[in-house]
Amino acid sequence: MEFQLNATAPGSAARAGLITTDHGTIETPIFMPVGTVGAVKAVHMSELRDDIGAQIILGNTYHLYLRPGIDIIGQAGGLHRFNGWDRPILTDSGGFQVFSLAANRKLTDEGVTFRSHIDGSKHLFTPERVVDIERAIGSDIMMALDECPPGTSDYNYARRSLTLTHQWLQRGWDRYTHTEPLYGYRQAYFPIVQGCVYPDLRRESAKFVSDLGADGNAIGGLAVGEPTEKMYEMIEVVNDILPQDRPRYLMGVGTPANILEAIDRGVDMMDCVMPTRNGRNGMLFTQHGVMNMRNRKWADDFSPIQEDGASVVDRMYSRAYLRHLFIAQEILAMQIASIHNLAFYLWLVKEARKHIIAGDFKTWKEEMVINVQRRL
Amino acid sequence: MEFQLNATAPGSAARAGLITTDHGTIETPIFMPVGTVGAVKAVHMSELRDDIGAQIILGNTYHLYLRPGIDIIGQAGGLHRFNGWDRPILTDSGGFQVFSLAANRKLTDEGVTFRSHIDGSKHLFTPERVVDIERAIGSDIMMALDECPPGTSDYNYARRSLTLTHQWLQRGWDRYTHTEPLYGYRQAYFPIVQGCVYPDLRRESAKFVSDLGADGNAIGGLAVGEPTEKMYEMIEVVNDILPQDRPRYLMGVGTPANILEAIDRGVDMMDCVMPTRNGRNGMLFTQHGVMNMRNRKWADDFSPIQEDGASVVDRMYSRAYLRHLFIAQEILAMQIASIHNLAFYLWLVKEARKHIIAGDFKTWKEEMVINVQRRL
Repeated sequence: MEFQLNATAPGSAARAGLITTDHGTIETPIFMPVGTVGAVKAVHMSELRDDIGAQIILGNTYHLYLRPGIDIIGQAGGLHRFNGWDRPILTDSGGFQVFSLAANRKLTDEGVTFRSHIDGSKHLFTPERVVDIERAIGSDIMMALDECPPGTSDYNYARRSLTLTHQWLQRGWDRYTHTEPLYGYRQAYFPIVQGCVYPDLRRESAKFVSDLGADGNAIGGLAVGEPTEKMYEMIEVVNDILPQDRPRYLMGVGTPANILEAIDRGVDMMDCVMPTRNGRNGMLFTQHGVMNMRNRKWADDFSPIQEDGASVVDRMYSRAYLRHLFIAQEILAMQIASIHNLAFYLWLVKEARKHIIAGDFKTWKEEMVINVQRRL
Repeated sequence: MEFQLNATAPGSAARAGLITTDHGTIETPIFMPVGTVGAVKAVHMSELRDDIGAQIILGNTYHLYLRPGIDIIGQAGGLHRFNGWDRPILTDSGGFQVFSLAANRKLTDEGVTFRSHIDGSKHLFTPERVVDIERAIGSDIMMALDECPPGTSDYNYARRSLTLTHQWLQRGWDRYTHTEPLYGYRQAYFPIVQGCVYPDLRRESAKFVSDLGADGNAIGGLAVGEPTEKMYEMIEVVNDILPQDRPRYLMGVGTPANILEAIDRGVDMMDCVMPTRNGRNGMLFTQHGVMNMRNRKWADDFSPIQEDGASVVDRMYSRAYLRHLFIAQEILAMQIASIHNLAFYLWLVKEARKHIIAGDFKTWKEEMVINVQRRL
């Protein structure tokens, strides 16, 4: 994997770059749609490519490991062959999902033992095992196993957790550097900065992560309950230390405004279930603000969903029709909203990139942050 | 509406024809996907047109009347304008749905009073009112309000029911002939033959219906619990009487084998929720037989869903991947299966038409009826 820095924005830490993988290039900043089990919910692969313009999608190691299982993905020749997506794929380590299981997991120095949310069966994830699984999945970018403590963790817990996370990072890194890809193309391994909302822990973690010399680095454990301003502060603290010449991936973030603020602070990659999950519940994100499509105000608004929208569905269906589909609980409503929201997120980062290169990112962003937060 | 008869099959009552409406032509025999509330479940309008090749879709008067409501559809300028489907639309009268409400409806000579399945509100459908509603919906083919008795009705009930249905047909017909379309294009009105499984009632009804001189005629009250052979027998009895020069629509039927047997007996139009409903449950219909995609046997079958299938999804996704999507309860599974099944049904009637014109329909059909009923 290579990363080429094309431009930085005046008065901002925002950067425009290009990631090259063996499955193609990725223009940064980029938003990555989430395809947890190897499919982005309610979206065809052709729509993802042609209507949304996704350049890279996520898969989740925990979910794929449980279903369809690593033997099936291995027999298929990796996830790309299994799901037919021929552009880059990044896999979450599953750490976040495992720690969400709360009562059904047990943490030791060795790793984490957990019970499947599907059938209650018992499993062990170690940093090494997760690398092996991600090798079998064949993701272009593999994420390290870490502990992701809640945003409300106290300093002592955060401290202990970080020590464990760093041990795990080192063990995962060792496994990564001593194993080869299974399918003939390169796989990068991204370590993850943790440290909750404590600047000294974040700095220590950013230093530790930087020293590994990975192809790219991630910032985890944010947008997990802490105040938004704290999140922005932590991004700044960490990005001051992370190497300039490697992409920085902010995990699980966020709203359109969060995306813009993260880009402004030097983040290159982001993912979030928000455009698809909120879309399925009737929330549309647009460059003019947020629309709750279940609202009665759209019942007789026969204008297109968004006349100047980024996706074909924006002009194919009216607001009144989409509202009707949501009220009648039609699957098509979720399909339309998912395509619209993902196309908007991809449009947003593409515009950001244009303005970074043009040199007017900062003014464009300040205005756009206000627009996207309006209630329509 | 015009109907042109292009060919009849030797040794069969099967016919190939062409229906011309103000929203375009329909090649018969035709299968019509069901879009109950103005959307075919889990299918985009563009997929319906381009991937499935639907020539006409159904809407349901009962459902559209309740949601989004006739004032909204009227304000939109009719259902075509509301949902963006610019090819022909046929609307069910809603009689079948109302009678399915059982405890929540009351039948009188005037019409049927029912409570909404959504909010319990009380409504009255009369034959005249249903014509008015279908005028507001603007369907190209409007179905008459009838009583649809259960397939197990005794002779006396069937007799009384038929008398009422014929009174209603006459009243609906009078309303139809004394009113004008609202949106500048023509609307046909199809009366419906009833009579349960009693040949004399079916004959009487077919005669009554034929005498109205409508643009097309429907056969209702079949596939509602009676033996399949009875259904085929009733189709023969009725089609012996219905005029040759008007299309014949068999309502709510059926499996691929039912479709072929109906075509063989001179039916021109069919609709059914089976391809979409069974598809959402994991059942795929193909020209080689039926596949239950939840079956473990597909887990490691990485071949395309159907190499020689009629739809793009057939080669876009593998059986193993589709099986995984069903097991993981992904919406995309339902989308893929719905497109596949509808494309197959449309392919089946198109092939039937080709063979009717080529003169070898009967032998083709006998073989295909066996193939489509295999369990794969």
